[in-house]
Amino acid sequence: MKQYKYLLPESEMPTHWYNVLPDMKTPPPPYRHPATLEVLTPQDLAPIFPQPLIEQEASQERWIEIPEEVQDVLRMWRPSPLYRAYRWEQALDTPAKIYYKWEGVSPPGSHKPNTAVAQCYYAKEEGLEGVSTETGAGQWGSALSFASQFFGLECKVFMVAISYQQKPYRRIAMETWGGNVIPSPSSTTKAGRDILAKDPESPGSLGMAISEAIEYAVTHEGWKYLLGSVVNFVMLHQTVIGLEAIKQMEMAGDEPDILIGCVGGGSNFAGLFLPFIPKKLNGERPDMRIINVESTACPSLTRGVYAYDWGDTAKTGPVAKMHTVGHDFVPAPVHAGGLRYHGMAPIICSLYDDGFVEARAYNQNEVFDAAHSFAQAEGFIVAPETGHAVKATYDEAMACRESGEAKTILFNASGHGHFDLSAYDAYHRDDLIDYALEEDKLQRALRELPNIKGS
Amino acid sequence: MKQYKYLLPESEMPTHWYNVLPDMKTPPPPYRHPATLEVLTPQDLAPIFPQPLIEQEASQERWIEIPEEVQDVLRMWRPSPLYRAYRWEQALDTPAKIYYKWEGVSPPGSHKPNTAVAQCYYAKEEGLEGVSTETGAGQWGSALSFASQFFGLECKVFMVAISYQQKPYRRIAMETWGGNVIPSPSSTTKAGRDILAKDPESPGSLGMAISEAIEYAVTHEGWKYLLGSVVNFVMLHQTVIGLEAIKQMEMAGDEPDILIGCVGGGSNFAGLFLPFIPKKLNGERPDMRIINVESTACPSLTRGVYAYDWGDTAKTGPVAKMHTVGHDFVPAPVHAGGLRYHGMAPIICSLYDDGFVEARAYNQNEVFDAAHSFAQAEGFIVAPETGHAVKATYDEAMACRESGEAKTILFNASGHGHFDLSAYDAYHRDDLIDYALEEDKLQRALRELPNIKGS
Repeated sequence: MKQYKYLLPESEMPTHWYNVLPDMKTPPPPYRHPATLEVLTPQDLAPIFPQPLIEQEASQERWIEIPEEVQDVLRMWRPSPLYRAYRWEQALDTPAKIYYKWEGVSPPGSHKPNTAVAQCYYAKEEGLEGVSTETGAGQWGSALSFASQFFGLECKVFMVAISYQQKPYRRIAMETWGGNVIPSPSSTTKAGRDILAKDPESPGSLGMAISEAIEYAVTHEGWKYLLGSVVNFVMLHQTVIGLEAIKQMEMAGDEPDILIGCVGGGSNFAGLFLPFIPKKLNGERPDMRIINVESTACPSLTRGVYAYDWGDTAKTGPVAKMHTVGHDFVPAPVHAGGLRYHGMAPIICSLYDDGFVEARAYNQNEVFDAAHSFAQAEGFIVAPETGHAVKATYDEAMACRESGEAKTILFNASGHGHFDLSAYDAYHRDDLIDYALEEDKLQRALRELPNIKGS
Repeated sequence: MKQYKYLLPESEMPTHWYNVLPDMKTPPPPYRHPATLEVLTPQDLAPIFPQPLIEQEASQERWIEIPEEVQDVLRMWRPSPLYRAYRWEQALDTPAKIYYKWEGVSPPGSHKPNTAVAQCYYAKEEGLEGVSTETGAGQWGSALSFASQFFGLECKVFMVAISYQQKPYRRIAMETWGGNVIPSPSSTTKAGRDILAKDPESPGSLGMAISEAIEYAVTHEGWKYLLGSVVNFVMLHQTVIGLEAIKQMEMAGDEPDILIGCVGGGSNFAGLFLPFIPKKLNGERPDMRIINVESTACPSLTRGVYAYDWGDTAKTGPVAKMHTVGHDFVPAPVHAGGLRYHGMAPIICSLYDDGFVEARAYNQNEVFDAAHSFAQAEGFIVAPETGHAVKATYDEAMACRESGEAKTILFNASGHGHFDLSAYDAYHRDDLIDYALEEDKLQRALRELPNIKGS
């Protein structure tokens, strides 16, 4: 009898996050100040982030305890199931064994609440009243609206105006969980008012929304800004995914040869692969492959440079050394909005630079070919972002079919696509555009990086 | 440490369906022929349904084996989790213990695939090429599109034209699973062409869509018609819900005092409560309450009559004795489209008539008050239909708060509301209408029931 799902009881949920920093060959270099470009001190971050998060950002502790209050919320949906994709294997006629970790079971529908819950807990511990953030596609705004409820925090989400109009379901979901969603640019902040004065019809951008969210936090007593990817503490909180997956793969009597995940800022995939990587770093599993999958519309690992860059378009947040296509680069409007971030998590960038992980990029149509085939075989309709991981898995499964090797593949199914069905509709109607990367646009954006000596 | 979820391993999934017919005090009387009104023979049903389903419809076997091929598909998401709603209990400040069975984890998002998979299996066993059906809100069409894939069947879904336009996400989901979705009335069938000839702009209705789906099945070699509620074999297939719940309540060390579910045709709730009802029928738990919750827009149990009526508006399907508001009755356009069926499952009607189960009806706004409070506490955004069960649970929990009794309540969370968020939006904007039932309209519809002697 085939077993499709590997479930862990709540008592087996991780009690500690895994911090990769002490195990890295080359830890990420320190952040720089957005204005002075000098090395950033923890005090510089204090007006923005809650203190425990600033400490986690540079912690050298390998294991960090997950507060009981955080575990108690995570247990509402965690441990998440790990699936064996028997039917998809059969459809692809591959000898490969395909597993996927299904993060779509969280109420907001993605991996994002894993860190949103932790961040809200620390915000509440600090006695804060509310938290602000930005959202584009809406996954992060959903997660924070959801998580803030459990700690009695107000939550203000600046949502890119064009997404606010085009994705009403995401907006309604955030409001249902209690989030206060504001189309950005807005008259709520000076940054927003300045933009609206120049262009009252501005469709907004993630950069503008970040500026508004940070301004709102630093100008309101009792408020701080939270963010959903890129930084070390977010990667840390997401390691519950991989820690669970290790136990579940043991239940399945299997061990992954290939780990796959999509990367925008990098948090869902880092969450899966970081707990597995010690075996690669210590030479126990040198053959294990770790494949980061990005969109050709925003190929920071595969086409960008490894250099210091601002984390946000408005240059108000920290400067980090990362693979980037430039903070000024405006990616083509692909449906995988979560993969349209110009940079990449510094932890992933360092591991990539050191050759421990690999990367590739895909176009929209090939991604939806794979996601469509997955939905028909496995039933689950994944988010466009997740579709990129599905496509890489498809390619590796096909390579196994060619070579006859029965490799074990594990990918992270980071979220469902219930609010992204217009993308599937465009695919069905042959209306999906494969945007070519404009080389001159990329080169122009790369000329705008900060000039930091010795980096 | 609180335990939120009770999970069963796949090996604990039921291997047999529970058939309540031999245990009923008053089994439902036989169906009648739609034209002659004579007692229907199994042969009369043969052109419409696959043979094993016709046998199950009248079976006197208490336990019917679930074919291994059906179990194999169900195991993709079953057993479904049973949750303890600790956070909602706390928010309501009630001593009641609230549990819910969460059917939203199936890929199509509701309980409907439990029977769709079985029906498609039997259709394939009979060597059919394809299956046709109708869908209004889209849950059943989604389930059948999903299930037909696994047995290599074509699937044609006649979707009420107005829903086709207003619920594009449901339509796209069905297409992603491989369903061929046609707005009804259509030029595909004679029934559709006749309607379009009179009214080219017809918004369609469930009755029209049923007529088209049945016509398509009986006029195409190798096709049959499948349906998602009301009849006995559908109730049978849904009993996996309650059979799992019995084991899960045992894991929780608890036993329900009150069972609650929403009822349109009745299948999700019958699926939950039927396996529990022997204890009520045999007098072991006479105090156990079983509450059917309907919409005030279509109150077949609470305001209708118990009489023979046609199952469909077009009078092409079997005539059944059931609680009905009349096949001609057009319910107000409430968001809970799945509760807009004029009749009720004959099994439920007989149990109601014999006093083993009770019923109540709610308006939209009070339903969304409760569903909103549930979403904020538990995270899950339920379908408008499920919201009716949530509201009854809310009322029972509040009654416990009044009386101080710590009753154990179990309700069926039949599906997620990810494709119904416009209803939540209307609620947030104070735009939900509480329709008053038009008594004269109801009386007019009840005058159109068939005249059957001795019934």
